Amino acid sequence: MDVKMINPFLAAAMHVLKTMAQIDAKPGRPFLKKDDLAIGDVSAIIGITGAAQGSMALVFTEQCIMDIASNLLGMPFTELNHEVRDAVGELTNMICGDARRRLAEDGIVLQAGIPTIVGGKSHTIVHIANGPHLAVPFETPKGSFMVEVAFSGQT
Amino acid sequence: MDVKMINPFLAAAMHVLKTMAQIDAKPGRPFLKKDDLAIGDVSAIIGITGAAQGSMALVFTEQCIMDIASNLLGMPFTELNHEVRDAVGELTNMICGDARRRLAEDGIVLQAGIPTIVGGKSHTIVHIANGPHLAVPFETPKGSFMVEVAFSGQT
Repeated sequence: MDVKMINPFLAAAMHVLKTMAQIDAKPGRPFLKKDDLAIGDVSAIIGITGAAQGSMALVFTEQCIMDIASNLLGMPFTELNHEVRDAVGELTNMICGDARRRLAEDGIVLQAGIPTIVGGKSHTIVHIANGPHLAVPFETPKGSFMVEVAFSGQT
Repeated sequence: MDVKMINPFLAAAMHVLKTMAQIDAKPGRPFLKKDDLAIGDVSAIIGITGAAQGSMALVFTEQCIMDIASNLLGMPFTELNHEVRDAVGELTNMICGDARRRLAEDGIVLQAGIPTIVGGKSHTIVHIANGPHLAVPFETPKGSFMVEVAFSGQT
């Protein structure tokens, strides 16, 4: 998988969290995800088509998304409720949209489906792509989250 | 949401399970899913774009997917391992592909992303569509599963 397909998603995650939730997210070392290594408490998945078929997932620990949602919506959250899940969906749309805009500047035009949110303590996510899928851990002051991008085929 | 967008997914689920896994899946009463009502042990999500933006999810109980995977692959499975998760991905591609073929006959052309598989006991799925999303429970001789379809906008 070409790194030029991945970097826009990482840049978008940092940009959206900084501008919308005033949170500095620091990317760690990307790794090729071979199995369901990321374990999250709430995740978002969005399907991607167009110049490439794929999917993006955001995988959050509970503490981390509480903090992000509190900043994003300007009110404190203490439980993973309906509003927090909606905030995860909004974040996903914003990050995927920002990444698609960056890719479009390079002539790579992608379309996105609608976000799906997964709840449930310690669930795992596996992308069924016939190409590799890349996972990038991010650290924030209140905990970690993972950005995962998978594309099929020869992109 | 127009029922003509939903029925092809239900017909596809029945057709694929019957022809590929020799399993009769009987649809129950569809309902509008307002919150995260479906609780599953393994789920698949695939993003849809084109004539409409949306997503399809298949939500299985553990016993039900074991039975389906055993028939599909012709060998008995007793745990939710890598091969079972791959089988869920294959099923998702086949059901979504069959539904898209049916819709294309009516001039509705959709593209699909790649399946994402969610594992973890008793997780929940929420689609962030600005239109309603429909859930249809299916009964098989070995347990139940749910087909969920959500589209955004005015389709």
